Parts: sequence; C-alpha cells; structure tokens
Amino acid sequence: MQPYWATHFMLPGQEHSQAQAVGESLEQARESVAAMVGCDPFEIVFTSGGTEANNLAICGQLSQAASARVPAAAVPLAKRSRAVSSALQSHEKTTVGRIHVLVSELEHDSVLAAAFSLAGDRVDVELVPCQENGVVDPAQVESMLRANTRLVCLQLANPVLGTLQKVREVADICHNRGVSVHCDATQAFGKLPVEVSQLRADTVSISGHKFYGPKGCGAIYVRRGLHLSPICHGEPREMGLRPGAENIPACIGLGAAAHLASRCESEVSDNFAELSDRFLNGLESSLGKSPILLADGSPRIANTMAIEMPCDASAIQKAARQLVFATAQSAEPPDEITRSLKAIGRTETQIRRTIRISLGWTTSRDQIDRAVSLIADACDTVMAR
Amino acid sequence: MQPYWATHFMLPGQEHSQAQAVGESLEQARESVAAMVGCDPFEIVFTSGGTEANNLAICGQLSQAASARVPAAAVPLAKRSRAVSSALQSHEKTTVGRIHVLVSELEHDSVLAAAFSLAGDRVDVELVPCQENGVVDPAQVESMLRANTRLVCLQLANPVLGTLQKVREVADICHNRGVSVHCDATQAFGKLPVEVSQLRADTVSISGHKFYGPKGCGAIYVRRGLHLSPICHGEPREMGLRPGAENIPACIGLGAAAHLASRCESEVSDNFAELSDRFLNGLESSLGKSPILLADGSPRIANTMAIEMPCDASAIQKAARQLVFATAQSAEPPDEITRSLKAIGRTETQIRRTIRISLGWTTSRDQIDRAVSLIADACDTVMAR
Repeated sequence: MQPYWATHFMLPGQEHSQAQAVGESLEQARESVAAMVGCDPFEIVFTSGGTEANNLAICGQLSQAASARVPAAAVPLAKRSRAVSSALQSHEKTTVGRIHVLVSELEHDSVLAAAFSLAGDRVDVELVPCQENGVVDPAQVESMLRANTRLVCLQLANPVLGTLQKVREVADICHNRGVSVHCDATQAFGKLPVEVSQLRADTVSISGHKFYGPKGCGAIYVRRGLHLSPICHGEPREMGLRPGAENIPACIGLGAAAHLASRCESEVSDNFAELSDRFLNGLESSLGKSPILLADGSPRIANTMAIEMPCDASAIQKAARQLVFATAQSAEPPDEITRSLKAIGRTETQIRRTIRISLGWTTSRDQIDRAVSLIADACDTVMAR
Repeated sequence: MQPYWATHFMLPGQEHSQAQAVGESLEQARESVAAMVGCDPFEIVFTSGGTEANNLAICGQLSQAASARVPAAAVPLAKRSRAVSSALQSHEKTTVGRIHVLVSELEHDSVLAAAFSLAGDRVDVELVPCQENGVVDPAQVESMLRANTRLVCLQLANPVLGTLQKVREVADICHNRGVSVHCDATQAFGKLPVEVSQLRADTVSISGHKFYGPKGCGAIYVRRGLHLSPICHGEPREMGLRPGAENIPACIGLGAAAHLASRCESEVSDNFAELSDRFLNGLESSLGKSPILLADGSPRIANTMAIEMPCDASAIQKAARQLVFATAQSAEPPDEITRSLKAIGRTETQIRRTIRISLGWTTSRDQIDRAVSLIADACDTVMAR
C-alpha cells in the first residue's frame, strides 16, 4: 500500500500516464479479490467495509421498493448508470403491493439494521430462527417464503459460534422461487476457502480487516445481471454502485490480503482445527472438567469458539487481562454475542458464563498453552472468591 | 498512520487497554479536525470521504421526509441512537406535504446526485443559478426560498473556478427562515482558514485527500442539536451517524493533516496568491497576450484557476503531457468543469479552450516557470498546425 499514499497519489480518472498506472493497479487488486471468491472482476465492487457492503446489498436492492417516491424524477443531473436505470425499470415492474424480506436472526448488526431500516408500510422484515445447533434450517427458510418475498439474508459463518450456514441449499430453494440471497461472508474469508460458485448467493460481503487486509476497506460481490442501485450518490464509479474518489491504497491492500488468503486458506483451516482442539483439551485438563463448546458438532470455522465456563465470563476477563476475548455485554438492544447465544436457546446465566475466543493465522501452540493457563488461573481466582 | 495498521490494530470498542489507547488516539484525531474547523469534537463525524459526507448531510436530513414508509416500524432490532430517535420525532412533525430543497448549480456531483436522489412526489429539488462572476447571489437564494424549503446546499470554494461563495450570508438568511444549510467545503480546507463559526452552516463536508490527508477518509461537521439520521445502518458508532469498524489509521492521518493545515493555511494562502500571479504573468509574457482567468475579481482560493487559452485545451493537454491539469470532457451528463463553466455563461468554444490548473503546498517558483514554458510551447505547437 505504501507507494500509493504518496508516490502514486493520482486517481484512475485523471488524465496522466501515472493515473492510468494507478488504475491498472486498482484493477489488479480487483482481480485478486475476484480470484479469492471465484468470480469475474467486474462482479467485485470496492466499499468502505463490510457494513457498507451489507447495506448496499440490502438497501441497494430494496430501498426503491420501500419508498413511495418516483425514482424517474431523480434524473436531471444525477448520473444514471446502466445499473441504476435497470434497477429503476425492474422497480417499476414490482412496486405494486408490499414486499417481504427474510433475515436470519444470527446476522450481523449491519444486516439486521439495514433490513429493518426499510421496514414500514411497503416492506415486511421477518426473522428466521436458527436451530439449537447454531444452524438455520433451509426447510425453515422455505416454509417462511411468501409469494412477495424478494430477499433472504443468510450469513456464511457466525462470528460468535463459528457455525457455517447452508447458504447454497438456501440459495437453491430461493432461486427456484425467484428470490435473491444476500450472504454476509465477512467472517469466513481468510478462515476457509469461499467460492461464490459454491455459495450461489447473489451478493456476498467481504471485509478487509477480517482477513488481515486494511481497515476501512471491503468489497461486495454482485452477481452479473443483478440490479442494484447505489446507496450513496455521486459520480458513477465502481460499476456505478459506489461514488467517491477510490481509496486506492486500501484497495491495493485488500487485493494483497485476498491474494494471501487464497493461497493459505486451506492450510490455515487445518491449523485452526489443531489449535482449537489443543485449546479445548488444555482447558479440560486445567479445569478438571470438559468445557462446553457451543454448537459443537455443527460445521464450523474452527478458529471461532463460544465456550461456556464454570463461572462468570466478565470476572474471568477482569482476572486475565493479558488475553483478549469477548463476552456478552448487558446492553440494550442486546449485543451480537447475547443475540447469537439467545438464538441457540442459552439461558441468561449460561450467556453470562460464555466467552468468545478466536485464533489468528499467527497463533502458536505456545500462545494456546499460555491462554489456557491464563484462563485456568483466572477461573481459580474467580471461583475461590 | 503506520503503527495503527499493525501494532495498534485493535478497535476502540474492544475490551483491552490497547483498545482504549486506540480509542484515545481516535479522539485526539477528532479533536485535531475539530480544531481545524473551530467546533467541538463531538460535532465531527468521520466518514469514508467527502462524497459520503455530502450524502449524509443531505439524505440524512431528508430521506425520511422523502419516503412514505413509517420509520417507527424499523425499531425491533435496528439500534436507534438518540440522534435517530430525535430525527424520527422531528420527521413526524414535518412530513405533511412536500418539502423543497435548493442546490446551487455549482455543487459537486455528490451533492447534486444526493439531492436529486430524493426528488420525487414528496421532495422538490431546485437549482440556484450562479452569476457570471462565479458567485451565487444570496438575494437570489432568498428569492427562491419557499415556505416548505428545508435545506439549501452551497459549497464554500468551487473546485473549477476557485470562487468563494457567500455561505455566511446565505446561512443567515436561511436560519431566519428556519432552513438548514449544508456547505461542501471539501475544496477549501488546506487552502484557506475555514471556521464553522464564520460559515454558520449546519453541516460542513471535509475530504481528507483534498488537503494531504489519506484517501478513503473524510468527515462531516454536524452542528450540535441538528438531527441527522444515518444513511448506512448497523451498530451505532460516530455519534450514531456512521456504523462499521472505525478506519483508525485513516482517521489518525486525517487528524494529522488537519493539524498541519490549521498551522499553515494562512501562509499557504499567501503563497498561492504569489505563485498564481507568477503563473498568469508568465503566461502573458510567453503567449504575448493576457490569459483570461475566469471569475477574476471574485473572491477566490488562489490555487485553483480556470484559464481560457487561445486554442483547444485538450490539444494543449496532449502536447504538454508532463503537466497535469484538467479540461472539460465531452461527456453526457456533463462533467464538473463543463457544468461550472456553463453556469457562468461560457460558450461551447470557450469551454473547449479552458484549462483548470491547481497549485499545491509544495509547488515552487521553478515548477511554475516550467509549467508556463510547457503550456506556451504546447500552444505554439497546437497553433502552428
């Protein structure tokens, strides 16, 4: 990224050979991201992160249907890209009556908030419950589809439980009914190979900093032929879906991270499995009892574990400050950890005792052993009180 | 910015002393931006750039009024910040009937596109013409205000002509009538001191890379007490106005750039005046005739010049590749340069002959002389054909 802050500071749209070179680097970065997800480069749109990607997928598909305004009136100076024009046409066909959106209850705040921002007298948003194993049942989704369902949102990997959702099965069911599927896969990249040809979702969100790319940068896969409208307005860039000067250094960084992730996702995945076993076995030995790994037995990304402890998790956190992990917060509305744990039927007490811990590419066996010892010591301290 | 990519990689919301340190650095950056614009830190919201800031100012104030949906239905899981709740309340009071928005015709694409994206059966958007001197007449704005006008958008400095708009006069007129003012000041920061207490606008857009800050980062000043709703949805961050993981390195960079700009804006402004005179005088000597500086005599940022040449500007551009400047493009819809030049009444031929050139902090006298010589040689070549 470094040279793109200062030396190669131009923007692709400018009239200069250096600007063209920057444009070529940007397109190479797009190709690296496309290679990671197995799509064509023009199906990748750079965003400012996963939250914007989720909002673009959801509001970009549905906001015009949710609104009473006549979008054709927005023409005079606003530049209408082909994508926008097509979206307006498809909108004109379908605005009669209400539309329906299904969102899994395990989704990230940005997915839920984007969907519920549209809810009102034209859009119904309904939550799809997940099973106690942390997986949404595709048959459940199917049973909730209505004639006017337009979109189903289902994440790939849950950031709290690590559970993998059956996105492909759901997508096949939905596509048979003419329903689009948005998959927030931000938590999965860099942890296991993700191929959109396998997922079959129409839009897929990517967040740079979740797989060692830069903060402030993400991307969205938009299936060729899918009509989205931009959620931010201005000069048409990024296939007409995202205006504003391109964040060149960050896009270059995202491309590099994608290249790295493509090369090591399989290996990393095996490593996570070994290290998480070592962690759980270590905890069992130290605590003298088997720790409860939630959603154990479900397909999961092995690096992400929600573990029920024998005592209060926030007390453990206070007693093991050197170790960074997450616990449920008593906030209103509930935080993501509380929501995910409630979704699989955990009680308030169980939720208060649960830690969410994750491993990274560079996590070593020594670090695992140290983490076990810190947690075990903290539990001793807490339980001795 | 460097340490925040890797060493200080945590996010402010995380539970760790390092995360808290990162949060403190973020707030220091916010203070630096606030010091540059002369406001309180909590009136600064970081965004992904000027385009997002303009969209947030406009759509964040008006999108609910533009929509027929009942926003209160969006409650269940979407987190409603205080700002959002207040916006909903104020919305409920004012949705009866249509609303009216005035936008100067000199505005950036993102301002125009954001405003026109709302146009429809509930929102009227009207363009305010500018005078031949490149300045919008406050009396003109006043004459166009209607009883249902909610917002006036007026930039501070025009990126093509360099003209400074009478934002304060317009804001005083508008506030007397209960109308908000959005000021896109992205082009002015780093070129002259900008104080919101002087501008009196309700929202002011800031773009990092326009004053040597990082790409992919900007900010918006939101006057204390003004109710905006977020345009992107998720966990409430940035005063509830911008969700998503904070782009910490970029915000740190923006803070540093703001600090630098605050210190040198006056000095830089004098330097620009000297260098632009040298440039114009140089052109006059070399070309044997006085170059036509557009909007000459109007208050301007001296670094930004639109100059009418004796021959075709794109031909000059091709003959002087080492020099980077902009010309009008024959695009539909018209590009920003064409729009600004048309707005001050230039003919097609005059527009084709106009170059837009800008000076930077590091521009030297030698570079000015070299630029003059490149342009003069290019003009000779073009006119000898």
